[in-house]
Amino acid sequence: MTLDELIQRLRDFADARDWNPYHTPKNLVMALSGEVGELTALFQWLTPEEAAAAMDEPGLRAEVLDEIADVTLYLLRLADVLGVDLLAAADAKIDRNEHRFPVPRP
Amino acid sequence: MTLDELIQRLRDFADARDWNPYHTPKNLVMALSGEVGELTALFQWLTPEEAAAAMDEPGLRAEVLDEIADVTLYLLRLADVLGVDLLAAADAKIDRNEHRFPVPRP
Amino acid sequence: MTLDELIQRLRDFADARDWNPYHTPKNLVMALSGEVGELTALFQWLTPEEAAAAMDEPGLRAEVLDEIADVTLYLLRLADVLGVDLLAAADAKIDRNEHRFPVPRP
Amino acid sequence: MTLDELIQRLRDFADARDWNPYHTPKNLVMALSGEVGELTALFQWLTPEEAAAAMDEPGLRAEVLDEIADVTLYLLRLADVLGVDLLAAADAKIDRNEHRFPVPRP
Repeated sequence: MTLDELIQRLRDFADARDWNPYHTPKNLVMALSGEVGELTALFQWLTPEEAAAAMDEPGLRAEVLDEIADVTLYLLRLADVLGVDLLAAADAKIDRNEHRFPVPRP
Repeated sequence: MTLDELIQRLRDFADARDWNPYHTPKNLVMALSGEVGELTALFQWLTPEEAAAAMDEPGLRAEVLDEIADVTLYLLRLADVLGVDLLAAADAKIDRNEHRFPVPRP
Repeated sequence: MTLDELIQRLRDFADARDWNPYHTPKNLVMALSGEVGELTALFQWLTPEEAAAAMDEPGLRAEVLDEIADVTLYLLRLADVLGVDLLAAADAKIDRNEHRFPVPRP
Repeated sequence: MTLDELIQRLRDFADARDWNPYHTPKNLVMALSGEVGELTALFQWLTPEEAAAAMDEPGLRAEVLDEIADVTLYLLRLADVLGVDLLAAADAKIDRNEHRFPVPRP
């Protein structure tokens, strides 16, 4: 499964269900935000130590995988609807961050 | 630029700046949430029509690319720290969604 | 029920359950964010017209009341833990907004 | 400054600037979410200890007050537009929470 195949699979999924009218930028931003909220809720009461070990606990691990997948799906769908190449945008942002946060010299 | 190269670039970026102690799951979930908040703010007052045309307006387009990149970077970083394969997790979630939302028969 | 009584009720609620160790600023900010995510999810697929009529639909109305209450409770609790007087902070912010956004003259 | 006076002040503020067309439920939920994102960002890299002492640092204190005020203003405005009595909704939710989370007996 490549990123491009995943994007295409999401397109086909929305097409088959006539969901494109719902997949407006505003709605998808809200859906992304809602899923990040659910992901946040999984970690909110954990100590830093418990959070670091979250993936060792099978029940919590399944929930984290589920929510992080939802966040990914809505982010990919939003980028697709907006015509954004996520990898290129992310790579260009790291370039800018390299200038904003130069590596400290010894 | 592939997804794996991007993930590695983020690792190197954090290593070079000694940022790994800050990149705990709780902190990265919060950072992801904060960036989604900034992305949301770009769309909040737009009509559905204005939001659909957001990428045609150069200033707004640059802001959207910047914020969507930030969301992507923190999502990749969080997944890496948690040991999650994002593509596999997203693909498995679409499988589950196929069962939850079957295609309506004609 | 006054705002002060509500704040006190939340204090007593946390005390009685020994929840104060969980009610750190970071955790409460995350909980607030998670609840805002749930509130967002209620509105994400609605058209502007459907959203404007949300409170006329009894099932949705109950969900909105429930989520908006959760947001309020965590905001009050966070403010209390931080020692913030919410009404004074909000009032002072409107003062600043009056200067940032002067009323247009005819 | 009472809560009712604050709600009225926000109404007058929106009226004077002809902002009511923007203050739809969807838009206000997004604005609330964006402001919670900014509040989250203030705490994201802090250790639990630093977060607990956030209000002792004047610069950070001013930022927290500003963001928590923004969250409050949009929450009040959203509730007003939806016709929700926040205090009653929050009080009723604590009633429900009393049943969901009974106090442990010794």
